[in-house]
Amino acid sequence: MNLELALRMTEAAMKQAAREGASISVAVVDEGGHPVSFQRMEGAEIAGPVLAQGKAYTSVALRRSTEDLAELTAPGGELFGLAGDRFLCFGGGIPLWADYGEGERVVGGVGVSGGTITQDVRCAEAAASVWRTR
Amino acid sequence: MNLELALRMTEAAMKQAAREGASISVAVVDEGGHPVSFQRMEGAEIAGPVLAQGKAYTSVALRRSTEDLAELTAPGGELFGLAGDRFLCFGGGIPLWADYGEGERVVGGVGVSGGTITQDVRCAEAAASVWRTR
Amino acid sequence: MNLELALRMTEAAMKQAAREGASISVAVVDEGGHPVSFQRMEGAEIAGPVLAQGKAYTSVALRRSTEDLAELTAPGGELFGLAGDRFLCFGGGIPLWADYGEGERVVGGVGVSGGTITQDVRCAEAAASVWRTR
Amino acid sequence: MNLELALRMTEAAMKQAAREGASISVAVVDEGGHPVSFQRMEGAEIAGPVLAQGKAYTSVALRRSTEDLAELTAPGGELFGLAGDRFLCFGGGIPLWADYGEGERVVGGVGVSGGTITQDVRCAEAAASVWRTR
Repeated sequence: MNLELALRMTEAAMKQAAREGASISVAVVDEGGHPVSFQRMEGAEIAGPVLAQGKAYTSVALRRSTEDLAELTAPGGELFGLAGDRFLCFGGGIPLWADYGEGERVVGGVGVSGGTITQDVRCAEAAASVWRTR
Repeated sequence: MNLELALRMTEAAMKQAAREGASISVAVVDEGGHPVSFQRMEGAEIAGPVLAQGKAYTSVALRRSTEDLAELTAPGGELFGLAGDRFLCFGGGIPLWADYGEGERVVGGVGVSGGTITQDVRCAEAAASVWRTR
Repeated sequence: MNLELALRMTEAAMKQAAREGASISVAVVDEGGHPVSFQRMEGAEIAGPVLAQGKAYTSVALRRSTEDLAELTAPGGELFGLAGDRFLCFGGGIPLWADYGEGERVVGGVGVSGGTITQDVRCAEAAASVWRTR
Repeated sequence: MNLELALRMTEAAMKQAAREGASISVAVVDEGGHPVSFQRMEGAEIAGPVLAQGKAYTSVALRRSTEDLAELTAPGGELFGLAGDRFLCFGGGIPLWADYGEGERVVGGVGVSGGTITQDVRCAEAAASVWRTR
């Protein structure tokens, strides 16, 4: 992950948010889950820094989209009980994969918060698309 | 938010608590979620400072009443997993809105804890009414 | 504080870092101390997110530059003991003041980490200059 | 960082501890500061997991030996106030550098706790030597 790419991903997420009519926060983290960039749009809620960074971190830490984790952590799911302050398990966080010659591995993540879960997921997907076509 | 208004809101919540026969704690926070005032009635539980301030913070951070968040964070809800130490997602926290010329935004919140959830919600509503008719 | 201005401030800090030969992280927070933007340069240390955001928060929370707090919190200083995980009290955080008709107040802050303290302070100053001449 | 190397480093640290007559804990972390291995010797204190991992994390996060940080964070040092729960700033943590074609960078760290600081430093150095001659 590098800053230039993180900013392009952020821009794509925010353009999608504008289309959705949502005000969002966008975080991009590196393979260690540490923030590379964060932006909170005008009018986006103050929980955004915590939630967007938390979703991005969670997607890297567990190598799954937080949307998939929502199912796994629901009552009856095999990871029920995981969701909490550390791991945010509802849609909006997506891990970013790459193969630098040693096989596919997670090298970063993006997290979006501020809209509905459906909107957050679409905005995160817009960011992840930039990554996949980099 | 200012202290004089916060104290009037607190007084209204406590009057409602007296009618309910409940002993409560009342927190009022500003738009950043930071406490402006806190009062714990004689006989109210020591969890009150944590819970009342937590509900008030949560209502500001997520711009929803914590009663609405209870539904959203219940099993099957789209924010299931959000409830935890940081975000308190059961009734008693209400965000306070105002329009200072740039559109409606959350400029503070009130949180009540100590009675039943129904009582806490009614006390918080009494405080919010003061805000709305300020 | 708004995102557009935060990004301009960040750019100014990073340009200064380039002149200094330093790799830095830059955080801008609002009047509640909540992040509006964060950027970590290529090669900047992973402590950057914690330290830059912490310095920015501290400068807002205590309404002083963290450089001034370094003196106050040193042994013999009147705030000795304040420095810790919550309040970061060494140079690199600067509060941002404005008067929107109710007198001067702190409406945000900038925090820089990654270089020497002297470099961090100069980069934060570059950002604050953008604010003052906005 | 990989597990095989982490274990060889740990073994070297423990051999040194035996020579010193000390019982230690040894942590090895990756470039994100996340543990790769941890071992606590028979008789070593239960603070070891916290302290050894904390020193290793700190050495990576700040790219300095925690022994150097001890000077910087002492009264009068430019990072006075940094030491706390998050960053452990006394000897025993050493960052591990490598150049994988993009210049030297920190790719992991080792942390030792349980003996005197002098002993911890010598044990960590023994581990770091394994890294340097890998």
